[in-house]
Parts: sequence; C-alpha cells; structure tokens
Amino acid sequence: MVKRIESSQNQKIKKWKKCHKKKWRDEYGLYLIEGLHLLEEALKVPSRVQAVIYDEHFQKENVNITAEVEEYSVPHQLFQELSQTESPQGVIAVCKMPDQRVDITERGRYLLLDSIQDPGNLGTIIRTADACGLDGIFLGKGCADLYNEKTLRAAQGSHFHLPSAAVDLTDVIKQMKEKSIQVYGTALNGQELSYTPRAVQAFALLMGNEGNGVSEDLLSLTDVNVKIPIYGNAESLNVAVASGILMYWLRGFERE
Amino acid sequence: MVKRIESSQNQKIKKWKKCHKKKWRDEYGLYLIEGLHLLEEALKVPSRVQAVIYDEHFQKENVNITAEVEEYSVPHQLFQELSQTESPQGVIAVCKMPDQRVDITERGRYLLLDSIQDPGNLGTIIRTADACGLDGIFLGKGCADLYNEKTLRAAQGSHFHLPSAAVDLTDVIKQMKEKSIQVYGTALNGQELSYTPRAVQAFALLMGNEGNGVSEDLLSLTDVNVKIPIYGNAESLNVAVASGILMYWLRGFERE
Repeated sequence: MVKRIESSQNQKIKKWKKCHKKKWRDEYGLYLIEGLHLLEEALKVPSRVQAVIYDEHFQKENVNITAEVEEYSVPHQLFQELSQTESPQGVIAVCKMPDQRVDITERGRYLLLDSIQDPGNLGTIIRTADACGLDGIFLGKGCADLYNEKTLRAAQGSHFHLPSAAVDLTDVIKQMKEKSIQVYGTALNGQELSYTPRAVQAFALLMGNEGNGVSEDLLSLTDVNVKIPIYGNAESLNVAVASGILMYWLRGFERE
Repeated sequence: MVKRIESSQNQKIKKWKKCHKKKWRDEYGLYLIEGLHLLEEALKVPSRVQAVIYDEHFQKENVNITAEVEEYSVPHQLFQELSQTESPQGVIAVCKMPDQRVDITERGRYLLLDSIQDPGNLGTIIRTADACGLDGIFLGKGCADLYNEKTLRAAQGSHFHLPSAAVDLTDVIKQMKEKSIQVYGTALNGQELSYTPRAVQAFALLMGNEGNGVSEDLLSLTDVNVKIPIYGNAESLNVAVASGILMYWLRGFERE
C-alpha cells in the first residue's frame, strides 16, 4: 500500500532530507540510497529498509516490497529535493545503519583505512574488498563517511555485503597481532611486491590517505610494509587502484 | 613579463573559456589544465604550454616559466570564470594538444579502451598505465574526452608521460596481431587469472565500458579473454581498479 505525501512540510520528508547530512544520519541511524540496483541489494534483508519513496512518475512494477516496508509516493518536485543525484531514477530508500561491528577471526582478511578522504575512493575500495572476498573493513580517523551518497554510489551495494566499523586503528592492529594476523602497511620505502602473489589465508592490509599515505605512527606498528613498483613516470597510483592490486596480490588468484 | 587582462570581452579570454567544451578544444587544438602540479608536469616540455593565467591573488614565486610561454594575470572574478574546479589554486595553463599518435613496436605494452565513458575512470586508467610503464593508450569509440577537465585531474599529469590516440580498435587489434603482440580481452566468460602473473614482454589489454564491458565484436578478435575472479558478492569491479589489477598482472612485479 503506497501512501501519498504532498507537502515538503511533512515531518517524514523533513527528517529524510536531514539525512543528506552526516550529523543527522548519525543522530537518526538512517541513510538514503538511490536507484533500483541499490534498492534491490538492500531488500535482500527487508528489515534494513525502513521506507521506500517513489517519484509520482516512477513505474514500480519491478519493485517487490514486503509488507514491513513503508512505501510513499511524492510529487516530482519534492522527489527532486530528496534526491542527491543529477539524473534521479525515481526511487529512494531510507535504510537503517547496521551495528558497526567487525569480528576478527584468525583466518580472516581485513582492510584498514587511514584517512581515505574521498568518498568515491572509499566506495570503490569497499566494492573491491567485497569482490576480493574480504571479511571486514576498519575505518580509522579522517575517512570519508560510509553513508555519504558518493560513497554509497561507488560501492554499488557492497555496503550490504561486508561489515565496516569506525575504530582506532592502533587498537585494531594490536588485535590483529593477538590473532597472529600479518599486518601489511603501504609505504614509499616499503619492499616492492615480488613476482608471486602472497596468497595468504589471513591478512590485514593498511591503506592510507590520498596525499600523505599511511601515518608514520601506524606504519611503525605493521609487520611488513610494501609498495607497488612504479615502472613509468607517474608519481603514485590512485588509492582505490592500489588497494585493488594489493588485495588481489595478497589474496592470490586461485580459489580455495 | 606578466601581462594584465581586465575584461571578460578580451579575445584571448573568450577563446580560453571556449576550451571548456570538447568541440572548441578540438577546433583550436588547445586545452586547459589547473593547479601547480599539472603545470609543473606540463612545463617539463615548455613548448607544449602556450600561456599561463594567474589569479591576481596568486603568489607565483614558485613558478619557473621560460621566455617562450606567455603569462597573464586576471581579476579574481574572471579567473573563477575560467576555472572549472571547486577550489581553484589560482593558476591555469593553456596547453597544445600533442599529435595523437602511438607507435606499435614488437616489445610494447598497450591499453585499448572500448567506450570508457566516465572521465574520472579514464584519467585514473591513464595514471595507472603510466605507473605500470605502458607504451601507449588507444581510445576507441565512446570514450570520454582525453582533455575533459575531470580526465586531466584524475590522470595527475600522466597525459604528459605516455601517448594516446583515438582510433578504430578493430584496426589496432589487427596491427597488434601483425606484430605478434597477444591481445587480452576482458569478459565475464573469460578465463580466470591464474596464480602466477603473466609477466609478458609485450601485450595489448582491452578494457570495456563501465556497464556493458567490451563489445562482442571486439572480444571475437582477441587472442585470450580473461576475468578477475570475484570471491565475494560484488557483481563486478570498477573498471579503473580492474585495469590496474590486470595491467600489473600482465606486467608482473619484477623489474626487467
């Protein structure tokens, strides 16, 4: 049953619009996703979707919503105000933030992110970590917001596939060591990747800020620091590309 | 000697502003770059820089310009109109497009791009190809513009390090075969990467569109089609990340 909301003064509309800002997302424990692909991913666990909002012009035949999810139709103009994309697809969902918790197990593979500032990079890294079968992502100080619309868009639904948590990375590195998980940092003076991928069962890969890399404090806590060789004249790689090369290098290319 | 331009009606200003659009960039053979890092990269070959434009508030002590490059200072408001970034650094350069020509040699490594639409992805791929020591990039139909400001920003100066050419990819694949260079396509039904990187002396890697991959026509012309294994629940990888993993996998991680 789709309910109709007409006014931008409606309390729900006001609340949802506030979710454009991190402050209010954290306050309400809610965030917005846009488009059919993300909605379908979210609906694999219907309890995480609180409400679905349609542009009045949207054809919803292909959307399969269970009873527990509220549905609303709003005037086109109002939908545009709720949307944060340039070419809205006509459907937005209000999702509940999951508990930010990542369990560390002795056979796990993890990504530790130190101050990844660009939400597009963060989202692309989450997508790659999902593809590479990692078990969780730890976000240290200075990272872009997990629920920024650009992070969500770049992650293409991978938010729903692996857990993330905002943490103190120093603590997490200690916990990795207690479980005997090797921590790989990335540093300009690190050792160059060798010919053969590492293909290790468990690892923690620590990636750093776009401009400054991983902070010195954290690099001093790792087991090994590595770098991707640069054969040409570029000064460095984009951090999302570097993360992808390193995750697959550590994971190896054979199925278990 | 820095000349002053005051008016937005000045012919040079009008021409430079037109370079925001691909049509006029191609017409004039000129494009704009922004910021000190790109300017420094460009100035390694001063003849490719036609003019440098400063915001009147810009401190130019650190910029070392040779006599052949014209320099202009413009009012802040006018500079903002020329700039295409959100936080302009106060310096823009007008660059001459190089000849679009990539020589194919028997020991070369090349990237072939089929309809990479997003300029950020295109720029990131160019940066990675530079880092990985490739010898040139061929852009097929449907690619974003090489000189779009987002392409330039993401490439971080790698435009100046390796040649690119807009081509018919069918012709290029034929030329690769004439030189006995293996052409690797990327396809969902391709063979999964094996444990050991290929580490081949010469290769051509063909990457495809963000949504649709490489076109079937081109895939039928390649020597081998490969894919990166997906171990988790993501449907696919971002094309710039996938390009990075594949370039380094083909190149291998040992210096020659």
